[in-house]
Amino acid sequence: MTVTDSWPMVDSSTTAKQTANHLRKLVEGSKDVFETEESNLPVINMSIGDPTIFGNFKTHPLVLEATIEQFQSYKYNGYNNSTGLTSARAAIAKEYSEPEHSVNFTQNDVFVTCGCSGAVEISISSLCSPGDNILIPKPGFPLYKSCAESRGVAYKQYNLLPSEGWKVDLNNLESLIDNRTKAILVNNPSNPCGSNWDKQHIQEILDICDRHKIPLISDEIYNGLIFSGETFFSAASISKRVPILTLGGLAKRYMMPGWRVGWITVHDPLHVMTTVKEGITELCGLLLGPSAPIQAAIPKIFEGTFNAEYTKQNCDQLEANANAIFQGISTIRGLTPILPRGAMYLMVLVDPSLFDQHLSSGIEIFKNLMHEEHVQILPGEAFDFMNSFRIVITPPKDKLVEAISRINTFCNRHYI
Amino acid sequence: MTVTDSWPMVDSSTTAKQTANHLRKLVEGSKDVFETEESNLPVINMSIGDPTIFGNFKTHPLVLEATIEQFQSYKYNGYNNSTGLTSARAAIAKEYSEPEHSVNFTQNDVFVTCGCSGAVEISISSLCSPGDNILIPKPGFPLYKSCAESRGVAYKQYNLLPSEGWKVDLNNLESLIDNRTKAILVNNPSNPCGSNWDKQHIQEILDICDRHKIPLISDEIYNGLIFSGETFFSAASISKRVPILTLGGLAKRYMMPGWRVGWITVHDPLHVMTTVKEGITELCGLLLGPSAPIQAAIPKIFEGTFNAEYTKQNCDQLEANANAIFQGISTIRGLTPILPRGAMYLMVLVDPSLFDQHLSSGIEIFKNLMHEEHVQILPGEAFDFMNSFRIVITPPKDKLVEAISRINTFCNRHYI
Ligand SMILES: Cc1ncc(COP(=O)(O)O)c(C=O)c1O
Ligand SMILES: Cc1ncc(COP(=O)(O)O)c(C=O)c1O
Repeated sequence: MTVTDSWPMVDSSTTAKQTANHLRKLVEGSKDVFETEESNLPVINMSIGDPTIFGNFKTHPLVLEATIEQFQSYKYNGYNNSTGLTSARAAIAKEYSEPEHSVNFTQNDVFVTCGCSGAVEISISSLCSPGDNILIPKPGFPLYKSCAESRGVAYKQYNLLPSEGWKVDLNNLESLIDNRTKAILVNNPSNPCGSNWDKQHIQEILDICDRHKIPLISDEIYNGLIFSGETFFSAASISKRVPILTLGGLAKRYMMPGWRVGWITVHDPLHVMTTVKEGITELCGLLLGPSAPIQAAIPKIFEGTFNAEYTKQNCDQLEANANAIFQGISTIRGLTPILPRGAMYLMVLVDPSLFDQHLSSGIEIFKNLMHEEHVQILPGEAFDFMNSFRIVITPPKDKLVEAISRINTFCNRHYI
Repeated sequence: MTVTDSWPMVDSSTTAKQTANHLRKLVEGSKDVFETEESNLPVINMSIGDPTIFGNFKTHPLVLEATIEQFQSYKYNGYNNSTGLTSARAAIAKEYSEPEHSVNFTQNDVFVTCGCSGAVEISISSLCSPGDNILIPKPGFPLYKSCAESRGVAYKQYNLLPSEGWKVDLNNLESLIDNRTKAILVNNPSNPCGSNWDKQHIQEILDICDRHKIPLISDEIYNGLIFSGETFFSAASISKRVPILTLGGLAKRYMMPGWRVGWITVHDPLHVMTTVKEGITELCGLLLGPSAPIQAAIPKIFEGTFNAEYTKQNCDQLEANANAIFQGISTIRGLTPILPRGAMYLMVLVDPSLFDQHLSSGIEIFKNLMHEEHVQILPGEAFDFMNSFRIVITPPKDKLVEAISRINTFCNRHYI
């Protein structure tokens, strides 16, 4: 029987409709805008948190060597455990344990995921049912919203305070909790803020979790990227009671986000996470984790004697860049940069009352700065933070200087 | 304020609870059983669809070389488009286009995913909302159920008919359709059946889709692994009207499931899939796809002149194994093997009335055969098919012969 009637447009699911990678959408969209522009002013990309674009931050050759060795071994071409290769899980457990603070992970506390993005997705899905809610930072990395929405989980945003080094507004945070709040998510060091919290502040957040018996998801993907004089405190190292899912990965510390390896470590001082760990295991079973030969390289990567020097060099360069941008932007009337203490980002607050329409919002700045000066930043709106923009601090010094000068020109053109 | 009251056990989400990788759970569970057994009879593993275990099916050296080259190039360490590297998408589009059948994919029809598992997850999520249903094969690959359940999508199983080369029971299939059926999923060549359908049968399935305006998801991960005299027909090559999401990957054809690269290609002859493609794009944005350097190797891998010879050798070996197992099992009273025509599996039907309790179900056979003879198969129950078991046909000949002899011993021990 042949059918010849017409097909209606096939509808996508509500799942697909409620899933949106807000940030990537914005950036990928803007690429097209660029490609249709005619100009010989080269674009300076300070929009994506990808340190590899310019060649000044590079994957270490020994990391590559360790990985290639695993491919050549022919030993990791097959399936492995869906929660990750045992050797990789053991190496991650060892690397991120802090025995002096009673954090002693075993391989059973580690779940290897498809990027830290996969860790975000699985940690949220494992704790929050459809209709539950999760508290996430504002400004914050937009994937948190996307992952929640995709699973039918509601989110509420708590405020970070730029004037206090982007600490959490604790009263605001606590006021958002209701009986369907199943997780509090923090991100330290922060994207987009570049902040690094002190011990006491993390303790204050933990106290709120403890009072309300809500587990913490701590996205620590920028662990290892902090500036001179700073100490990084993992939430796990401070928590004596609150269960914590810490999210990490190779992407930022080793400068290869394209390799797509992340993980969740479960800190469970009061032994209340058995069910959640089972849930995470099931969720890992859907995708079976990232590429096995890369996982197999993790023990060698962590053992590498290059690590201390490599990390120091990267952090020094990031800090020098941060300082240069901070100083440059500070001299521009109407822009207030916030000095970062870690990660790869610097937030700039804008006083729109000093400017014409071209700087009336983050989105306007994003579009017009790109259009007029071919400098690509991200609007604060990408992180739900108005009248601001985010600068990625990874470009080499000469590009940064050039970018600041163009931003200056742009602002000068639009003062009222 | 210090809190000292106790924490209740933290509950996992309904999402986690409704997500279960049934197959992997069974297999990983059974490993533990094994490891506690004391015996010097070596285990013969014929349970996991991983061709790399025994060393007789190997990733081709040129595939490795192409991949290592991409790692060494330092060009793919950064983020790429969330739907996949452009060069990889273009290469997949070219490789799977069939211009002689009006299948002309462009890179915009291709979405690269974290394994074919990721393709299963995203294809189901993009078409089916919570509360909708999808029709899946019985016996069938258990991940279909897991992905549906994880997203709150119901599934209904249509029957495959062992006596007719595992064709679909079309009346049964059509009878399951209701107004919340949003996709029909087929798997050809089939895991666990090893079947390869002819053109006419695929057309019959498409006619049902067409009558009811339901898109087809065609899992063709075993495309390329078929036996002598067989032709493989992609669903896309036959469909002039029905939109099709074809699922594929590198895992089986190139013998490296651990690398975790899959894809969806969208065949859309009547141009009704615009919304769904947008939805797939959003869903890809959550995880940003598999490892970029491996994606970057895909063009070289597909262009390799080794392909024809490599595939032929693998298929010849698989077919020889299939025939040997078929013949061996055929001589065992009460067991009925079904001759495979592709993929890596052979199903054996069991007449429990001839045996004692030890063969009273697939699960009993699975446990007792493992316990008594150290031969690991999968029970039919793993695929929701009673009184049967699945043999993976990839072990080398001597192991197969040994396994058949042990199965024979096992059966002899338990006739009544
Ligand atoms: C705060 C934060 N979490 C998670 C991720 C995702 O990391 P990955 O690339 O490993 O998925 C990023 C990436 O930019 C990030 O900034
Ligand atoms: C029918 C079928 N589809 C999908 C998959 C998943 O493939 P991958 O390992 O690429 O995720 C398998 C793996 O065994 C399979 O048999």
